Amino acid sequence: MKIDEVRRVLIVGAGTVGAQIGVQCAMYGYTSVFYDIDPKALDAAMTRIKAYAAGFVDGGHLTQKEANVMLSKISVTSNPEEAAKEADLLSESVPEEPKLKRQVFAQFNRLCPPRTVFTTNTSVLLPSMLHKATGRPAQFAALHFNPPVWENRIVDVMPHAGTSEETTTLLLEFAKRIGQIPILLKKEHSGYVFNNILSGILSQAIGLVTNGVATVEDVDRAFMAVTKMPIGPFGSMDRIGIDTVWHALDSMAKKYFFIPGFRKAARFLKEYVDKGNLGEKSGKGFYTYPDPAFRRPGFVEGTEHKS
Amino acid sequence: MKIDEVRRVLIVGAGTVGAQIGVQCAMYGYTSVFYDIDPKALDAAMTRIKAYAAGFVDGGHLTQKEANVMLSKISVTSNPEEAAKEADLLSESVPEEPKLKRQVFAQFNRLCPPRTVFTTNTSVLLPSMLHKATGRPAQFAALHFNPPVWENRIVDVMPHAGTSEETTTLLLEFAKRIGQIPILLKKEHSGYVFNNILSGILSQAIGLVTNGVATVEDVDRAFMAVTKMPIGPFGSMDRIGIDTVWHALDSMAKKYFFIPGFRKAARFLKEYVDKGNLGEKSGKGFYTYPDPAFRRPGFVEGTEHKS
Repeated sequence: MKIDEVRRVLIVGAGTVGAQIGVQCAMYGYTSVFYDIDPKALDAAMTRIKAYAAGFVDGGHLTQKEANVMLSKISVTSNPEEAAKEADLLSESVPEEPKLKRQVFAQFNRLCPPRTVFTTNTSVLLPSMLHKATGRPAQFAALHFNPPVWENRIVDVMPHAGTSEETTTLLLEFAKRIGQIPILLKKEHSGYVFNNILSGILSQAIGLVTNGVATVEDVDRAFMAVTKMPIGPFGSMDRIGIDTVWHALDSMAKKYFFIPGFRKAARFLKEYVDKGNLGEKSGKGFYTYPDPAFRRPGFVEGTEHKS
Repeated sequence: MKIDEVRRVLIVGAGTVGAQIGVQCAMYGYTSVFYDIDPKALDAAMTRIKAYAAGFVDGGHLTQKEANVMLSKISVTSNPEEAAKEADLLSESVPEEPKLKRQVFAQFNRLCPPRTVFTTNTSVLLPSMLHKATGRPAQFAALHFNPPVWENRIVDVMPHAGTSEETTTLLLEFAKRIGQIPILLKKEHSGYVFNNILSGILSQAIGLVTNGVATVEDVDRAFMAVTKMPIGPFGSMDRIGIDTVWHALDSMAKKYFFIPGFRKAARFLKEYVDKGNLGEKSGKGFYTYPDPAFRRPGFVEGTEHKS
């Protein structure tokens, strides 16, 4: 398939990132069809999508007319046949369970036209764990978005050994056409590019606290002062969700069992998870929401410095 | 000693960071006296200091008059007795050799008044490796600056077990009085706060390249797109000096010999060092200077994307 022939994108799994991917495609003129087995998930996705559209208008990124055009490109269905019809590109964002993802790919392999290129937005799995189920391994690769999709703009394109060059080239070009910056992974690697670097930041930050070297606030303060970013490692974990970070770190602790730091860090996060302190979404994590200390004026300067 | 009694700061070792520390103190009204055994180093420091002052005026940070007042607070001497006289606070920035640092502290312990508080700006050593030589361990701690001092603004205050609370409190307050943000290290830890996080970023970034996963440019691009920083991990290594990063990584590789990634990363940097490609200072590193690709418009967007 040629890039100019791609018109219709099928988003399978209408969670947060799935919704953002569909919105990004629609913003650049593609038809976005959402499929979810659960009609309630589709309702929730449409509510979210409308809120995004309103946000773009409020923020001056789109006119009301442009937002309406974008919304007109988006439709939802819980009918798989209808979803699959005329799909040029499939983007899968269902939960991170290999069995479930394989079922979804096998189902849509039967329903989609032969030309459809299949992609997975998995954060933790590798395409080679899923490619057989697609029935079209040469037309399959990871196309991984970094939310908020329109802010971070990075799309990791990660082929497996059997992905055709044509597919890789098409996906790199597709990412550009939807206003994203493609990063080509030359071989499969868990965590892509940015998430690997983020894991380096977070594990060091946690190590400083679990080793009793510095406070959560001082680590964020130092990071924010030097990088000029509006958020530090612990604020970021609150935003991502401490449970999600714990999940990732725990699997690293199991893989690198000989590095005591990972086990210690995983235990540290588990205490927050067990107490239900998951970060922004639960109202409490390393900071208290909706008014976390790190967003207050003078935080970096240490006006509130407690030594 | 009380913080209001601190007036005269003795900077021992007039290299780049030493010069910046003296300038920062003088900018906030302190008398900065530079001591170096080598009069040529003092000449070079004064040239550098005058260039900093001119830069502050050009950048609109200081008026010419303020710059002149600042410069009038700075003096240099290669006479240790004169340097030590009436010093309230000593900041040591000589090369990272424990033996040399101990000699310097022992010498100035004999020459300085009993009240003088001693500090080390070491990046890699711990105060407990040096405290005996100061002859005044309770009045000694690390006071570590992150260059460019006036941009990064973070000062790590790291006491050893024998540092008095009075000294720690004085140093935290002193850092604030010279417009810096103090970060208290609750116990000794090599690398302080930010450098530990930076090492997490750099080792992951190097790992992506040495494992053949992504290019130098793509790693920087992904990092810059998400963080909105004007420089990525490889650009940063060019700025720090690849030899300096190699040195730090090599000692980690020796300490954590059971983690193959560190050894591989150290070998990767060593190849650049051996070829004399040290980064910005040598004109070539991961990028070519004075016009590195990552500073060109469109770099992040991948206008130059080579897949």
